Amino acid sequence: MTASEAYAELVRRSKELGVLNSCAGVLNWDHQTYMPRNGGALRGEQMAFLASLSHQKFTDPKVGELLGTVEASDLVRNPESDAGANVRELRRGYDRATKIPQALVEELARVTTQAQQVWEQAKKKNDYPSFRPLLEQVVKLKREEANAVGFKEHPYNALIEEYEPGTTVAELKTLFAGLTAELAPLVRKIVASPKQPDKSVLEREFPVDRQKVFAEAAAVAIGFDFHSGRLDTTAHPFCSGFGPGDCRITTRYNPRFFNEAFFGVLHETGHAMYEQNLPTDHFGTPLGVACSFGIHESQSRLWENQVGRGRPFWDHFYPRLQQTFPSALTDVSKEAFYFAINDVRPSLIRVEADEATYNLHIALRFELELALLSGDLTTGDLPGAWAERFEALLGLKVPDDARGCLQDIHWSFGGIGYFPTYTLGNLYAAQLMDAVRREFGDGIEEDFRRGDFTRLKGWLNQHVHRHGQRYRAGELCQRATGAPLSPKPFLSYLNEKFSALYGVC
Amino acid sequence: MTASEAYAELVRRSKELGVLNSCAGVLNWDHQTYMPRNGGALRGEQMAFLASLSHQKFTDPKVGELLGTVEASDLVRNPESDAGANVRELRRGYDRATKIPQALVEELARVTTQAQQVWEQAKKKNDYPSFRPLLEQVVKLKREEANAVGFKEHPYNALIEEYEPGTTVAELKTLFAGLTAELAPLVRKIVASPKQPDKSVLEREFPVDRQKVFAEAAAVAIGFDFHSGRLDTTAHPFCSGFGPGDCRITTRYNPRFFNEAFFGVLHETGHAMYEQNLPTDHFGTPLGVACSFGIHESQSRLWENQVGRGRPFWDHFYPRLQQTFPSALTDVSKEAFYFAINDVRPSLIRVEADEATYNLHIALRFELELALLSGDLTTGDLPGAWAERFEALLGLKVPDDARGCLQDIHWSFGGIGYFPTYTLGNLYAAQLMDAVRREFGDGIEEDFRRGDFTRLKGWLNQHVHRHGQRYRAGELCQRATGAPLSPKPFLSYLNEKFSALYGVC
Repeated sequence: MTASEAYAELVRRSKELGVLNSCAGVLNWDHQTYMPRNGGALRGEQMAFLASLSHQKFTDPKVGELLGTVEASDLVRNPESDAGANVRELRRGYDRATKIPQALVEELARVTTQAQQVWEQAKKKNDYPSFRPLLEQVVKLKREEANAVGFKEHPYNALIEEYEPGTTVAELKTLFAGLTAELAPLVRKIVASPKQPDKSVLEREFPVDRQKVFAEAAAVAIGFDFHSGRLDTTAHPFCSGFGPGDCRITTRYNPRFFNEAFFGVLHETGHAMYEQNLPTDHFGTPLGVACSFGIHESQSRLWENQVGRGRPFWDHFYPRLQQTFPSALTDVSKEAFYFAINDVRPSLIRVEADEATYNLHIALRFELELALLSGDLTTGDLPGAWAERFEALLGLKVPDDARGCLQDIHWSFGGIGYFPTYTLGNLYAAQLMDAVRREFGDGIEEDFRRGDFTRLKGWLNQHVHRHGQRYRAGELCQRATGAPLSPKPFLSYLNEKFSALYGVC
Repeated sequence: MTASEAYAELVRRSKELGVLNSCAGVLNWDHQTYMPRNGGALRGEQMAFLASLSHQKFTDPKVGELLGTVEASDLVRNPESDAGANVRELRRGYDRATKIPQALVEELARVTTQAQQVWEQAKKKNDYPSFRPLLEQVVKLKREEANAVGFKEHPYNALIEEYEPGTTVAELKTLFAGLTAELAPLVRKIVASPKQPDKSVLEREFPVDRQKVFAEAAAVAIGFDFHSGRLDTTAHPFCSGFGPGDCRITTRYNPRFFNEAFFGVLHETGHAMYEQNLPTDHFGTPLGVACSFGIHESQSRLWENQVGRGRPFWDHFYPRLQQTFPSALTDVSKEAFYFAINDVRPSLIRVEADEATYNLHIALRFELELALLSGDLTTGDLPGAWAERFEALLGLKVPDDARGCLQDIHWSFGGIGYFPTYTLGNLYAAQLMDAVRREFGDGIEEDFRRGDFTRLKGWLNQHVHRHGQRYRAGELCQRATGAPLSPKPFLSYLNEKFSALYGVC
């Protein structure tokens, strides 16, 4: 078999896996949206069947042989050619999938399924001790996973590679140190400011049916293609791109709080526009898959915050919003509304945090999961460490574990290494937007004031979406923005925005 | 490998196929209900992948070996034991799937996909000549399929076996002869009666949201489990049982015609209650699958017509219906409504036909597809033969092919042999209901007047649903009703009901 033939066969297998995995995507979406209550057991069997088939096909030794044949050829000389990038990423996935022993895969599946159930109850009952033994097992198994995969310097490097290939603990430590050094004082100044928004205007009556119409119109305006996607309602909002022509997003509506559904829809629309603009021809291969979790999050945060919490966006949308919710907003000025949606206030819950405090929540989790994994922190000491560090970073006392170390689902499903991608997303979003502003100048905000988001969307299509996994996140950032990732654009953005709003400097 | 081991392995494989095929069920449901327009291409790839995998697993020669091992043992001595029935039906499926050459399977898939598209346009444009060459190919390929499968007496026997195993052309001819001999004169008498219903009361304003609430409540009352199913809206109503705990039905609402959604929901609920009450433990094996298309249709027709178009049902529901649609029905008496929903009138379209004329539509199709398959009728002569026989059977001139031989989708997808199962369903429904009445006497109608359908549902669970494919349809009928299938109970039911309503005898 020639290298070209081997590569063609790899692509064929990869595309077949893409189709197979997209079936699981549809089943999972249905599970979250419309499946009747008693359908859960069958759905579990369906998902297990598809996952096992997918794993079996992907770890077939033949895949290893094909990779070896292509790697020994000139086809991959340029790591950013089609073959170069596809083989690089398939090799990463194949090695990871084949290095982890089947027994460990099964044990992880078993323990994390149980851990998620126990976590849900423990959170409800504020009962960390009931969750602790499960977390202990998860940490132990993730350590074994890291050892099986192999790593340099810190086992965490093996775990973050699953979400953000190419990123290291050392880089993240530098990023977070730079961030917290500036964020903590900024937040303190904001909190101390006498000028404060009236957030209560967002907690008036916002009828759900009108929220839906308004949010869908905004999603269309920024570029979501409803002929290639849908918006539904679920308890936990998500975006699921099945493949070309079909990407589904969800949100949840709170009739007494405007932000929840609306900014959720902008966020998921950001994710969805990435999925809807991946190169169709490469569907099923790495070139048709989003670059990394951090870059994916940059797309959601860019539309949610950089655009959706910006003045020009509301210059266009606020009159429409007032028309849609006259009884709630007739007496609220655009400026008062804009200030309210940009309320900065240290709070206990990550998913409710504002732009300025959000990354402090992540810094805390990054620190603690590093320590858990290395063994410097025991699961028994976690609640105390959480409370201590939370107060140091955010200035608040943690009243209970439910609003402390039990608040997030991630550790229960084994997602150690996932949290930093949220912060990476925020930083990439700011750096991308900074590059857009440099390219288009004030014109881009004039676009927004007219309700025209096509140039921004086109730029993101061009510099981010169409590349799939051709470049690793760092390289993509360098090419799109002319510089490696830095916290500076994000910090400048925050300082500029909130200094003006709160009258601090 | 012992016979017991072989049987266990067969069951394991069959259950795995059940799970695999249920994934395709979910994808197909989503396709009909919520899939965005541009998702069609990917959905086609997903369905093709799953279908091909299913075919490959089912026709694996190992399955043939396992079947052979079990068949040579005592395990199948009793053909109605678990192993006896499962192996009998798996063998039938395996032989059928392996006897048809792969090239023919692919050609049939190709031609019928194209034929359905062409048919849809041809029907819209009343253009039979554009469809004729495709139908010609379908008939030719179905003839080849019959030859590959093998048959006695008539190739049609090989085709009907796919839908109604054990039934033959000879039996069907006798049934249809008996039916038409009595139906045609009954319909003539009804048409000539001076007493006629005012059907226009059903064509008033019936707001869709209220129709939905009313239909869902009726579905619950007769026994649909909404925790194990859903009701959604589609262009073409259907029922899809994915497996234990998840069966979905759909309907379509016409704001100016009550019957369409309501009787559609009763019909699909009848199908769904069969699916929801198949034995869960046998899911994926023949014992967990409905007996035949005819028996399935008996369940939908029983609830739609025998129950839902009966007086006792409306003794309970009509006051509720008037409350739900006061402006449409306040001035309509229960008797006038009951007469209206039992309007008998020869009409051109099968799916709109009443209980008395419906089977004449099927008799026509059975006659014509027999002749097409045997070569006694050419596709060129089909429209003329249709018009001639339609007038003879139903007394109406066919104005065009769109309302003639182009009205049904079945031939375009290769479903020659399918139509008779509709009539079998009507006959089984009447015979089952006759047995129920013999068992419970007038008590069963007293149940209905109270809105209590549990005894009827329980009887069907006991005598039909729980058996899966343990018995062939004929044997199931014999056991449930004490007699082989006969058109008599159906004809008695019709004569009694409509003689009284129309004052004819």
